[in-house]
Amino acid sequence: MAPTKCVSLLTDYGLEDGFVAACHGVIARIAPAARVIDISHLVPPADVRRGAAILAQTVPYLPEGVHVAVVDPGVGTTRRAVAVAGGGRIFVGPDNGVLSWCVPDSDARAFELTNRTLWLEPLSATFHGRDVFAPVAAHLAAGLDIAAVGEEFDVSDLVTLPRPTRRVQEGTVDGEVLTVDRFGNVQLSVTADDLRRIGAVIGVPLGIVLGRRTLTVPYRETFGAVPPGELVAYVDSAGCLALAVNSGNAAQRLGLPPGAHVRVAAALASTY
Amino acid sequence: MAPTKCVSLLTDYGLEDGFVAACHGVIARIAPAARVIDISHLVPPADVRRGAAILAQTVPYLPEGVHVAVVDPGVGTTRRAVAVAGGGRIFVGPDNGVLSWCVPDSDARAFELTNRTLWLEPLSATFHGRDVFAPVAAHLAAGLDIAAVGEEFDVSDLVTLPRPTRRVQEGTVDGEVLTVDRFGNVQLSVTADDLRRIGAVIGVPLGIVLGRRTLTVPYRETFGAVPPGELVAYVDSAGCLALAVNSGNAAQRLGLPPGAHVRVAAALASTY
Amino acid sequence: MAPTKCVSLLTDYGLEDGFVAACHGVIARIAPAARVIDISHLVPPADVRRGAAILAQTVPYLPEGVHVAVVDPGVGTTRRAVAVAGGGRIFVGPDNGVLSWCVPDSDARAFELTNRTLWLEPLSATFHGRDVFAPVAAHLAAGLDIAAVGEEFDVSDLVTLPRPTRRVQEGTVDGEVLTVDRFGNVQLSVTADDLRRIGAVIGVPLGIVLGRRTLTVPYRETFGAVPPGELVAYVDSAGCLALAVNSGNAAQRLGLPPGAHVRVAAALASTY
Repeated sequence: MAPTKCVSLLTDYGLEDGFVAACHGVIARIAPAARVIDISHLVPPADVRRGAAILAQTVPYLPEGVHVAVVDPGVGTTRRAVAVAGGGRIFVGPDNGVLSWCVPDSDARAFELTNRTLWLEPLSATFHGRDVFAPVAAHLAAGLDIAAVGEEFDVSDLVTLPRPTRRVQEGTVDGEVLTVDRFGNVQLSVTADDLRRIGAVIGVPLGIVLGRRTLTVPYRETFGAVPPGELVAYVDSAGCLALAVNSGNAAQRLGLPPGAHVRVAAALASTY
Repeated sequence: MAPTKCVSLLTDYGLEDGFVAACHGVIARIAPAARVIDISHLVPPADVRRGAAILAQTVPYLPEGVHVAVVDPGVGTTRRAVAVAGGGRIFVGPDNGVLSWCVPDSDARAFELTNRTLWLEPLSATFHGRDVFAPVAAHLAAGLDIAAVGEEFDVSDLVTLPRPTRRVQEGTVDGEVLTVDRFGNVQLSVTADDLRRIGAVIGVPLGIVLGRRTLTVPYRETFGAVPPGELVAYVDSAGCLALAVNSGNAAQRLGLPPGAHVRVAAALASTY
Repeated sequence: MAPTKCVSLLTDYGLEDGFVAACHGVIARIAPAARVIDISHLVPPADVRRGAAILAQTVPYLPEGVHVAVVDPGVGTTRRAVAVAGGGRIFVGPDNGVLSWCVPDSDARAFELTNRTLWLEPLSATFHGRDVFAPVAAHLAAGLDIAAVGEEFDVSDLVTLPRPTRRVQEGTVDGEVLTVDRFGNVQLSVTADDLRRIGAVIGVPLGIVLGRRTLTVPYRETFGAVPPGELVAYVDSAGCLALAVNSGNAAQRLGLPPGAHVRVAAALASTY
């Protein structure tokens, strides 16, 4: 028999209540040997896009296993509950896009969770993390074949979130703010590869266009390369361009919320 | 020998300091094979009632084991430290009521923690979670007989918190706000069973009386059944009536803190 | 072969993102049998001193193992990454002082992390917790000899944080605010031993000098020994003098931030 798989949990349940613990408990009862890794439970309530971004950036560092993501404003309505296998992993959650940035382009298989014998009884209308997703994930971690969770359907029918904006043009790349982390570092949808394509070179400042403002920002390896209090652009640990203030908070200084549009220009003399 | 039991922890210690980790460490040293599940450490400081509610609503989903609850404003004073066995579980904590909603009505046994050989030495006056409750729980998880923790006493001498108000009358039920969760959902002490007794039917609006205000609120399966921004009443995942605003914060909108009195009327024509 | 060691993690990464989970995942992949204990991830961003204090006060209660501390404002710059063995434990982190209060005075050995074959590839410039410290710690937990992580250097070359101020004089001791916990309890650098040396006795009030203010504060075993709302001094669970308000917040009442100077006088008649 295969060893029990690792289960990871991502939710917007917060940590003040017992919601996350109830999910842990359900998993421990069904799959006592499963290691559970909490990705985060502080996704802003109902922020499916933020959940999708954290999941996609974290999963590559986790053991192959069963990854549960519950940011689920449609719980109890007609939205589908699904399990998706792909790339050696299984993703479990609502079919609202939160899983979509993790599903590989080929060889994925999708199943609707319809086998109620795996669920908790009685089923609540509002806590499918505890009553549906956690028990199904635990059974899968313990070795259940994914085909047992419910009907297979065409993976192309999964709800997908639009990918973040990225448009490379002559010498510039347009993107958007993807996330803001605890330090106030602003992660953009612009990748290291995009920067290479527009000819950006570490050590040469970037032009950053935010609405009507244009800033000239040092482009360095890390925020520690500029003096405290100064703005800097660098490729972050997820491979995305980020704006930071060394020992400060770039999101506050720049007033940049997730989704804000940003244009990045490779050199000071470029046409923007 | 019996396998090591699961230990769960509920405290008001917060997550900024190393307090919770010290408890984990003490448990890991005494019972290295014990799985530890954190219920929550963000109980509002000294809010025994909130701790009791979270504990009682979460424990049924955890593996049978040793459940430690430390919301303990009287630490270091004469309040008793106890272990209570009942319903296949063992509860460990201060005797201030935080455990009381978990103690079954029959077949429970209570012990005062007096066997100091199980405690950490030196004993601090203010951190019995680390020095008393965690080591005792770990010994119990590892198989120690509960009679070894100290003197047995009559379970009816345990401090109990008054149960939340619930009074069913002709067509109405009076209750109180039990908890407010991260989403601002307001959980009432009114149960699904109370609602059936007053003749409430899903799909027919409820009358909700808050002081001098009376609101007519849709009564549905889930908050997702009403449009975003609208108030809704539903039976939540703990079996209690809850008030929510779909994609919003009902506690803020209604100004309802824990303990506030609420009257629920089954139908619009009822007498309130 | 020795059993896998416990790994503990202390960071300022926060819990909103997937940063901590990525570290857990890296450890689980390299050392699947390692128990991981989270000390705290809510160290204020870049607050190396606070990180050092929490680490030093928590580690004695953890199983002997590998202790990772990443409060690392200099990540990606020339600051050294190190592993230090001492007292049966191994400490892993940046060489900026965060580890320094845990390094024993004798018999410690220090190594610079230079063996890149243990690191993740590609190496990010800003997330050495995931790419350097977690994998090195996991290899050490799984049994790797510490000499394999890189070059040994003289332990006296480690960066050390100045110890908190403590100066005992005739009848008084000068100290500083070390930390403020979730409850607003103010922990001073003054120890129980200092108090004995100046002749303080539990039950006899202390004089507390804060700048130009002098307060007479009951000195008791625990905050519960004074009525709610009253200020009290007591020796806390780390063996330090602390100021608390029973059922209140002493840090707010006194306006005392970490680092603030405090003089403690043993008896009301002493010379201050």
